[in-house]
Amino acid sequence: MQEGRQIKVGVLGATGTVGQRFITLLAVHPWFVIDALGASSRSAGKSYSKAANWKQTTPIPASIRDLMVHECKPEYFLNCAVVFSGLDADVAGDIEAAFRAAELAVFSNAKNFRRDPHVPLIVPLVNASHLSIIPQQQLLHSPPLKKGFIVTNANCSTTGCVIPLAALEKAFGPIESLLVTTMQAISGAGYPGVASLDIMDNVVPYIGGEEEKMEWETLKILGGIADSDDGLKTFDMHSRHPLRVSASCNRVPVIDGHTECVSIRFARRPPPSPQQVREALAVFSPDAQALGCPSAPRRTIVVHEEPDRPQPRLDRYYQDGAGVSVGRVRQCQVLDIKFVVLANNVSIGAATSSIINAELAVLKGVISG
Amino acid sequence: MQEGRQIKVGVLGATGTVGQRFITLLAVHPWFVIDALGASSRSAGKSYSKAANWKQTTPIPASIRDLMVHECKPEYFLNCAVVFSGLDADVAGDIEAAFRAAELAVFSNAKNFRRDPHVPLIVPLVNASHLSIIPQQQLLHSPPLKKGFIVTNANCSTTGCVIPLAALEKAFGPIESLLVTTMQAISGAGYPGVASLDIMDNVVPYIGGEEEKMEWETLKILGGIADSDDGLKTFDMHSRHPLRVSASCNRVPVIDGHTECVSIRFARRPPPSPQQVREALAVFSPDAQALGCPSAPRRTIVVHEEPDRPQPRLDRYYQDGAGVSVGRVRQCQVLDIKFVVLANNVSIGAATSSIINAELAVLKGVISG
Amino acid sequence: MQEGRQIKVGVLGATGTVGQRFITLLAVHPWFVIDALGASSRSAGKSYSKAANWKQTTPIPASIRDLMVHECKPEYFLNCAVVFSGLDADVAGDIEAAFRAAELAVFSNAKNFRRDPHVPLIVPLVNASHLSIIPQQQLLHSPPLKKGFIVTNANCSTTGCVIPLAALEKAFGPIESLLVTTMQAISGAGYPGVASLDIMDNVVPYIGGEEEKMEWETLKILGGIADSDDGLKTFDMHSRHPLRVSASCNRVPVIDGHTECVSIRFARRPPPSPQQVREALAVFSPDAQALGCPSAPRRTIVVHEEPDRPQPRLDRYYQDGAGVSVGRVRQCQVLDIKFVVLANNVSIGAATSSIINAELAVLKGVISG
Amino acid sequence: MQEGRQIKVGVLGATGTVGQRFITLLAVHPWFVIDALGASSRSAGKSYSKAANWKQTTPIPASIRDLMVHECKPEYFLNCAVVFSGLDADVAGDIEAAFRAAELAVFSNAKNFRRDPHVPLIVPLVNASHLSIIPQQQLLHSPPLKKGFIVTNANCSTTGCVIPLAALEKAFGPIESLLVTTMQAISGAGYPGVASLDIMDNVVPYIGGEEEKMEWETLKILGGIADSDDGLKTFDMHSRHPLRVSASCNRVPVIDGHTECVSIRFARRPPPSPQQVREALAVFSPDAQALGCPSAPRRTIVVHEEPDRPQPRLDRYYQDGAGVSVGRVRQCQVLDIKFVVLANNVSIGAATSSIINAELAVLKGVISG
Repeated sequence: MQEGRQIKVGVLGATGTVGQRFITLLAVHPWFVIDALGASSRSAGKSYSKAANWKQTTPIPASIRDLMVHECKPEYFLNCAVVFSGLDADVAGDIEAAFRAAELAVFSNAKNFRRDPHVPLIVPLVNASHLSIIPQQQLLHSPPLKKGFIVTNANCSTTGCVIPLAALEKAFGPIESLLVTTMQAISGAGYPGVASLDIMDNVVPYIGGEEEKMEWETLKILGGIADSDDGLKTFDMHSRHPLRVSASCNRVPVIDGHTECVSIRFARRPPPSPQQVREALAVFSPDAQALGCPSAPRRTIVVHEEPDRPQPRLDRYYQDGAGVSVGRVRQCQVLDIKFVVLANNVSIGAATSSIINAELAVLKGVISG
Repeated sequence: MQEGRQIKVGVLGATGTVGQRFITLLAVHPWFVIDALGASSRSAGKSYSKAANWKQTTPIPASIRDLMVHECKPEYFLNCAVVFSGLDADVAGDIEAAFRAAELAVFSNAKNFRRDPHVPLIVPLVNASHLSIIPQQQLLHSPPLKKGFIVTNANCSTTGCVIPLAALEKAFGPIESLLVTTMQAISGAGYPGVASLDIMDNVVPYIGGEEEKMEWETLKILGGIADSDDGLKTFDMHSRHPLRVSASCNRVPVIDGHTECVSIRFARRPPPSPQQVREALAVFSPDAQALGCPSAPRRTIVVHEEPDRPQPRLDRYYQDGAGVSVGRVRQCQVLDIKFVVLANNVSIGAATSSIINAELAVLKGVISG
Repeated sequence: MQEGRQIKVGVLGATGTVGQRFITLLAVHPWFVIDALGASSRSAGKSYSKAANWKQTTPIPASIRDLMVHECKPEYFLNCAVVFSGLDADVAGDIEAAFRAAELAVFSNAKNFRRDPHVPLIVPLVNASHLSIIPQQQLLHSPPLKKGFIVTNANCSTTGCVIPLAALEKAFGPIESLLVTTMQAISGAGYPGVASLDIMDNVVPYIGGEEEKMEWETLKILGGIADSDDGLKTFDMHSRHPLRVSASCNRVPVIDGHTECVSIRFARRPPPSPQQVREALAVFSPDAQALGCPSAPRRTIVVHEEPDRPQPRLDRYYQDGAGVSVGRVRQCQVLDIKFVVLANNVSIGAATSSIINAELAVLKGVISG
Repeated sequence: MQEGRQIKVGVLGATGTVGQRFITLLAVHPWFVIDALGASSRSAGKSYSKAANWKQTTPIPASIRDLMVHECKPEYFLNCAVVFSGLDADVAGDIEAAFRAAELAVFSNAKNFRRDPHVPLIVPLVNASHLSIIPQQQLLHSPPLKKGFIVTNANCSTTGCVIPLAALEKAFGPIESLLVTTMQAISGAGYPGVASLDIMDNVVPYIGGEEEKMEWETLKILGGIADSDDGLKTFDMHSRHPLRVSASCNRVPVIDGHTECVSIRFARRPPPSPQQVREALAVFSPDAQALGCPSAPRRTIVVHEEPDRPQPRLDRYYQDGAGVSVGRVRQCQVLDIKFVVLANNVSIGAATSSIINAELAVLKGVISG
């Protein structure tokens, strides 16, 4: 990346919760400059400040207030090399496909393409190497693409969990069992999202589709890429060392920050001690840092020694929400090790991940700029 | 129990949170009549309405308002056959021992005697049979006791968990692994208890001593009573079929009702199906029901079919808080079966358990009245 | 009302929040028996348990579970003498008018007819005498009606305020200024109502239309009925002693129970003392009590002496939510007297008011049964 | 203030809630450098990170972590020119007096000296001119002081209210009546402060002493300084134009940010229109800005046009918490004008005020540095 070079980007679903986060982050980004905004036809034709029901604690960036909102059609984004998508799943599929076909690099927070065998599902602090599938994605497209592609990031609850797991697999080899119970913030459901009558003074022990996402996405993200008989690359879903994942997902009355109680069993016997686990987590440094992604956290995982941390209200702003906080690393009487991990679902769990993914793609030359 | 017979009882720690619950429940009890109230020397000599900082949603029962509060000394409770103790752990040990020595039957919500090898730790819907240790407790006392004894009930988070587990062990034989993650209400910490600055918009992933209690108490409660070589009975701690328990305890912003995500592995292969588990839970009927304890729930466990239940706000009043609610019974990818259980920590998790325990003792003739 | 006589009733908007409250209350009512349920065409044809997203802490009454839900057309309610309407304002107008035209007595919680010059707006503990407008309402209908009429109850925030004001005007004569600031519960907005992201850790100092309702409804309710020149009765809007009302309405993170800070100035000089006000509130006994309405509170207003009451969580269940709680009666440095009033918005502020209104109509012979 | 000059300061009550805020703010202050920390004897001798139960969302500043905490005795603060006091009222009186007697400039957040006739009570965006009483405070001390003095800032709820009132008195002349109802955050009560069982799903319509503080402090702050017959200056308590103040104070489940519903009557007839009020608020610029206080907000009052603002969660960070947000400016049916004001109680309502007061004292030459 040349010093001072700027890349024009668009935001799809710009008026929604994730879109607002994209705008807040991109407005101060050193490389990416917002050039176009897309939303539903209801918003199209309005200035952004009129179209959006802004819910952030900082005002709408001055450079964005008066930008016109367009429909989510590639014709309005021709100056952009990259689009970030905060679209809802019910429309994301067709729109993101159309932008890819129009030779745009799409970084999506939606679930629609996560299970696509040629689309990488990337948690930027974990599996940046999966960007290597993109040439195949472009080649298999009809007609083959030169610049267009889709990269997805993971579900917010998956993201928090796989970061420490990646650190531990790097240090101690494969994990064979994962049992995770989440306590997820209301902002994970978007706006208006969870009705206040459903969550005040309450826990809802169910989030539709969430457990399936965690159980499946974890395997794709922590797995590798294999060469199959037909000459194509495939995601191996951690199949060289099968990993069983059991997730229980709960909604709790917390605004931002997903807290997860994690128990794991390693393949290796004897397993590492809690202290070895703490050390491996603390020193973990992913590619995104080494490569110099500007939005990557300076430090990925903080390991708390205090017995009552991490807590969402105190720890969700760690590294501006781009890092994760781990605490209570201790032995598990049933599996090997258990700990608590906290990740900011609206930052590293959503928009921040998409942006670091795009930074990785720039630094690895996947985006020609 | 003869029709119409009444038993005079006392309440220790009468001004505290658990004490207020005892008073609310006992004021309408068909057998027990409050005769004496004990609290700290700061409260002694005052009328109850002056001494207590009453925090219940129903007023102080009219019959109790003007009762004089005494210090917790047996001399003020000579008319009572039974005392219920809601004392804090820092004073409960000595006081409860003194009341037992004074030939009173003590039903305690405190933790002090739970690990005593001659004191039964009874969840009334689970292990009423453990009352059989009482003659030994009385005999080994110096001097031997005729009427005095101590029965404890379990920690509130343990209670919710062991009730469905007892139902499942009864139906399908021993459980060999239990992994439980709790989301506990603030009322479990008493008053003033949890500071609002610590829990609003937050989760605290730690409750001092709670995980150890769950991991130990579960074994004592679900285990049996064995005859040891020296002719004494001992609690076998589930040792005939070792049970590994791993608990992760969290405080969440919920007023009443502990929600727990439970995963278990049975010894038996193949394990029961989710549907078999649902049926076994729904038909479970403990001794306390068969014997006719007036405070026992008419039905012990309700099994929800809706995917998003149980929820503390909607389900904590099931059976006036004396029953437990289970939902989301499904396969666990790591162990065998997982489900969610909700128990009202201030009812079956505390005062209601003590009272049913006393009812059991009356019906089994352990209290001579 | 003859002993044992029963009146068949219908519920319109039966699946909504207010409808669920009507059903919960009517299922145990001594006179009224639910005979028919009405909801939108989406629910019509389903059993109630299938149609309703039940959110009460007690289960659906057994007698109602399997009742078929109909569209809100009079033809399905021909066996009923009375219908209770919990309809949303966007449909309530036409439907309630149709039911009146079909000779049904309609007791509505909706706002649509509150400003109608021939429809009484009745807070049952305040202005039962306004039922006297009903013959005129029937006579002016085209064609004139024999049994059909509409009675509305007030907005939930108005209700809590006018009950103590009525007591004070009865004791001390007209009030000339009222300044009220409300802190209203989320349940006042129905379901799904307030988004959790809008109200957790927050106050919203605005509720659309609420201040206008309070400022207008208070005058109609506390005013009398005058004879106008054309021989018709009219609501005098408190015009004999003009009353200025200024309301500021806020939404706060409370589930049930509206708290209101009230300051008033009396016409009479010198004004009553705080102690005189307390006494007048405590002894207030409305017609609904004297007549023996079964759902009327045994005592209308409780006056707290403790400095920190009333509080919604502790006091909203007073008299099963049919009474109101007043506290902190003291001098106001700007007007004369200020106090805090708490009313349960889902009980006396909604369904309970409609039901007592119907009871009043039965006891006063307005409903011929 | 010379460029680059630094002033050594101390923090009293350094481990408490206000103390933690002082440390967070002072660690990045351009002039003030923390040199000494004082707390109770329980903390004395420990490093700050050991002594403090740190509850901020940013970590303890690196420069402070290992500072030794001392007892609050002047001998440990000899290098300091200024001390900031976050002491609790039960100890603040004696300690602050001792520091003043030791020739230190004390800027206190405690209430103890607010009513002292020679101590200024300063909201820095309102009455910086009251610093002129300090020479008299020093002269009347026995023995007379050269550098020592005490300046207090106001109660957090008073602060939010008087800022817009000062703007309005400046524009439209004296206000003669003020009726204010507050909805105050839990952080206003310190830590542990409000018990979660008292405030979750609740409103507490009482804060001990708060209404008296608002009613009295408002007069001292908005009043002027008069020359009395004995040659001394006195605070005139707004007596030239008597101002009646009636406050109703409530605690609500909000973490930070006090929301206040304000109604006022001006002396001037006719009163200004809502639009004139909006304009006067928006252009208000206090001395602290003109003088260049580094911690003063760039803009003091933002006036919202949206009907549902300000809201604590969205607006409490305005100007890093140093500005206030006003909305809903409209006519009052009883007095003249009503509006809603939001102020961040932990920033401009506490530590930020003390710091700007000290900046004012430096810029006005009251502190000789």
